[in-house]
Amino acid sequence: MSDIDPTGAVAEWWATGISRMEPGVIELRGRPVQDLIGTTGLAPMIWLLLRGDLPGPREAALLEAALVAAVDHGPQAPSIAVARMAATCGIGLNGAVASAVNTLGDSHGGAGEQCVLLMDEIIERERAGAALETAAAQVIAGWPRYLPGFGHRFHPVDPRRDPLLSLVEDAVRDGIVAGDHLRAGLAVEAHLAEGRARPVPMNIDGATAVVYAELGFPAPLARGLFVLSRSIGILAHAWEETQQGRRNKGPMPRTILPAHLRP
Amino acid sequence: MSDIDPTGAVAEWWATGISRMEPGVIELRGRPVQDLIGTTGLAPMIWLLLRGDLPGPREAALLEAALVAAVDHGPQAPSIAVARMAATCGIGLNGAVASAVNTLGDSHGGAGEQCVLLMDEIIERERAGAALETAAAQVIAGWPRYLPGFGHRFHPVDPRRDPLLSLVEDAVRDGIVAGDHLRAGLAVEAHLAEGRARPVPMNIDGATAVVYAELGFPAPLARGLFVLSRSIGILAHAWEETQQGRRNKGPMPRTILPAHLRP
Amino acid sequence: MSDIDPTGAVAEWWATGISRMEPGVIELRGRPVQDLIGTTGLAPMIWLLLRGDLPGPREAALLEAALVAAVDHGPQAPSIAVARMAATCGIGLNGAVASAVNTLGDSHGGAGEQCVLLMDEIIERERAGAALETAAAQVIAGWPRYLPGFGHRFHPVDPRRDPLLSLVEDAVRDGIVAGDHLRAGLAVEAHLAEGRARPVPMNIDGATAVVYAELGFPAPLARGLFVLSRSIGILAHAWEETQQGRRNKGPMPRTILPAHLRP
Amino acid sequence: MSDIDPTGAVAEWWATGISRMEPGVIELRGRPVQDLIGTTGLAPMIWLLLRGDLPGPREAALLEAALVAAVDHGPQAPSIAVARMAATCGIGLNGAVASAVNTLGDSHGGAGEQCVLLMDEIIERERAGAALETAAAQVIAGWPRYLPGFGHRFHPVDPRRDPLLSLVEDAVRDGIVAGDHLRAGLAVEAHLAEGRARPVPMNIDGATAVVYAELGFPAPLARGLFVLSRSIGILAHAWEETQQGRRNKGPMPRTILPAHLRP
Repeated sequence: MSDIDPTGAVAEWWATGISRMEPGVIELRGRPVQDLIGTTGLAPMIWLLLRGDLPGPREAALLEAALVAAVDHGPQAPSIAVARMAATCGIGLNGAVASAVNTLGDSHGGAGEQCVLLMDEIIERERAGAALETAAAQVIAGWPRYLPGFGHRFHPVDPRRDPLLSLVEDAVRDGIVAGDHLRAGLAVEAHLAEGRARPVPMNIDGATAVVYAELGFPAPLARGLFVLSRSIGILAHAWEETQQGRRNKGPMPRTILPAHLRP
Repeated sequence: MSDIDPTGAVAEWWATGISRMEPGVIELRGRPVQDLIGTTGLAPMIWLLLRGDLPGPREAALLEAALVAAVDHGPQAPSIAVARMAATCGIGLNGAVASAVNTLGDSHGGAGEQCVLLMDEIIERERAGAALETAAAQVIAGWPRYLPGFGHRFHPVDPRRDPLLSLVEDAVRDGIVAGDHLRAGLAVEAHLAEGRARPVPMNIDGATAVVYAELGFPAPLARGLFVLSRSIGILAHAWEETQQGRRNKGPMPRTILPAHLRP
Repeated sequence: MSDIDPTGAVAEWWATGISRMEPGVIELRGRPVQDLIGTTGLAPMIWLLLRGDLPGPREAALLEAALVAAVDHGPQAPSIAVARMAATCGIGLNGAVASAVNTLGDSHGGAGEQCVLLMDEIIERERAGAALETAAAQVIAGWPRYLPGFGHRFHPVDPRRDPLLSLVEDAVRDGIVAGDHLRAGLAVEAHLAEGRARPVPMNIDGATAVVYAELGFPAPLARGLFVLSRSIGILAHAWEETQQGRRNKGPMPRTILPAHLRP
Repeated sequence: MSDIDPTGAVAEWWATGISRMEPGVIELRGRPVQDLIGTTGLAPMIWLLLRGDLPGPREAALLEAALVAAVDHGPQAPSIAVARMAATCGIGLNGAVASAVNTLGDSHGGAGEQCVLLMDEIIERERAGAALETAAAQVIAGWPRYLPGFGHRFHPVDPRRDPLLSLVEDAVRDGIVAGDHLRAGLAVEAHLAEGRARPVPMNIDGATAVVYAELGFPAPLARGLFVLSRSIGILAHAWEETQQGRRNKGPMPRTILPAHLRP
């Protein structure tokens, strides 16, 4: 409170547990910023700001692996294509990143959030007494739309799945994480593979969702962490595009277009 | 001021001349909203909110013509392509419009702002005594980059140029606008045509910039008004795309891509 | 198709019924752009691009009234505050509008979309034989969250409600629209008022949703049209803010803040 | 090239050196993604994607320190306030981050880009024979607007300045970086301090710009890297806000407002 905010209403409206300032002082989650610079890595900082405490080294490493895995999937992903086109329109890199990050919605990156909810529901049913296979089958049967986090229209097996799940298995073995979400995710895979020639393995949204959920992040942060990760690829593509000097780049080279789509 | 804001600092921080509220009362530029609904068109409302007064009918009609002219230029424009791709990613129409409008930067729609500045500079030099042709030539010679508002890589003549300039000519003849920016724009065209087989006529950014500047809008609002206009086409394309049911649409059909660009 | 797109896959990928280009030619929904400039207003253009045909004059006037009604609700609305703050950060007006329009989500402007769905459901139940009051009561009872389009935390009666609904009543009387959504909306109001001292009348999202639905726009376009409308106020506020010369404007004047929130 | 893209025009239009896909294969800058997951940290990944090679450990640590330093500066920064308000409007975390990142323009975060250009100019003049002090004085005298990267309206000394510059000094001493930009930045500080009671030290934009420029990042990437860094704080604040359950949060509590600004 202050003379000018006698009821404290203003301070309350913008109150935050994340950062605190005074002239010459910046504290992040109670830690002076100068103690963090040079001693704390990016992954622990992300954890600290989102959750209020610092992770152990194994937890930080697992988080970092998932963030590294999803940085980019090439210019055919709408987010990357948007970044590259936006970067040619005379706006700064901040604007190109913003237009692109914005597209990481329910079906593109945001799927991780729904995948955590899917796994949560399976775990709940199992805790209520159902066999894991049954729980998975029931939740899948009742899922209203696309099953989030499984299957890829391009990769038969996503090359990011195995290394991520393998790191989670190590962490389960060493007691770093509990393993419930890993078991739930594998049960979904198993159920989807039944009687099919071509299985439907976890994709990157699914595999990173397993990591984030095992580490205790709530579902919406699976989306949020994907945003941080993919921002790296988005920035790299926007920057590469600006160096090629195109202006107002459309989705296809004009020369390949039928006349009525050309300009 | 209020008991709780004794110095009035809060009220001052968010003070605006555009709208005023009390319980049950909404005034826009001093006019009760219920007096505007059903009596005032969109173009006069845009004028009212931006400038504080209502335009005459001829001014409103001229503004409306320019806003209508620029609504869309097809899916090869980056803004439209971005809107369509974003709309398939599981975000609302508000998000698709935002990602797209954001790309209307210095080289894509924002060029109108710079074109007004170009014409302003010519008018100033003329007022300082230079012949119009000389003024145009000098300003063009000193312009650091692409000449904003002139030339089109697709249309030999932009079909929106003539009807817009013709409306401005009528307005000059009837004393509605002064005609200085029209003269400056035509002088640029004339200078660019000298000795060329293929002239470089005004494009839509240029022609609408002439309208907006003649109507007395400051340069940055040429960009702002373009944003309002193109938002209409952006919304229409985003909506059309959502009805086609694609998910995570990339810039090109996967079937046409070399494998390494395909997913 | 073209030599260079032998299968037509590229043309199909970006096919649109909205606009068609050839060198020197721009057609919008099959109409040459030069025939639209100066003859067609903004509201009919919005209708044309979204739906493919031109509205009658009464339909256009009703659409225009709803678009006018929602242009602004002052700087305390998050969309407007975002626009004003963004405008001080060294990005163009396009960027300020984008950051702001993006916030028009499910609870802020996007509520119109859900309100149409609410009314649709009531109409459906009535058509299946329920009395209107019963239909309204049932749908309201089953609605999972905030009832979209009703009630306002500030206005006891929203001054935009009566003029909009009155225009819809006129249109019903004259056979321009059918009146089903108006009846559904009023039934919700009546149900909410039962036994309450203070009724919960339609707010701007609700009243404009009635207009858009009566005119035959699908639910997601209630959100889309709100975006076009509010963009006008967003632009006006962003522009007003840039003229005041602040840089990096925060949400509150620094002088009123407790020290730890001040910078 | 492919049968369906005989001229290779399509492949060329979206060509990138950043990522390469084949079914079951993802390579980032030529490295299989499965070799990077679990072995490579976030800071080296950022470097790899932006520049094509992996940094040495000291370079990676310096980059990471700068990225950590700028993650947050509290809710009074417009970017953070925008994120928090947007998060209450019914859009996903991706949308809240996008609206916020978009505001990191020329005066808010984007200043790092201009600060690198400022230092570049001083270094160039020095290389052309001027004394460092003279070079700094000349460039400052000719700078058209606010000096980017120096001074803070809140902190007398920014607590992030010393630890960052100290890490750069260490890196210079050990031959990791050349030290030119550090010298240029300090020369600007010295010039600004002359004859003043209160000096104008580097702020966070300036200190991180020194780091990024010393590491060889081009000027626009000072802005781009700031975007990645601040995204972390933006996400944390958006997430904290969603957990408080407010809807459509305005910039100030309604109770403190004069009536006409209240809704």
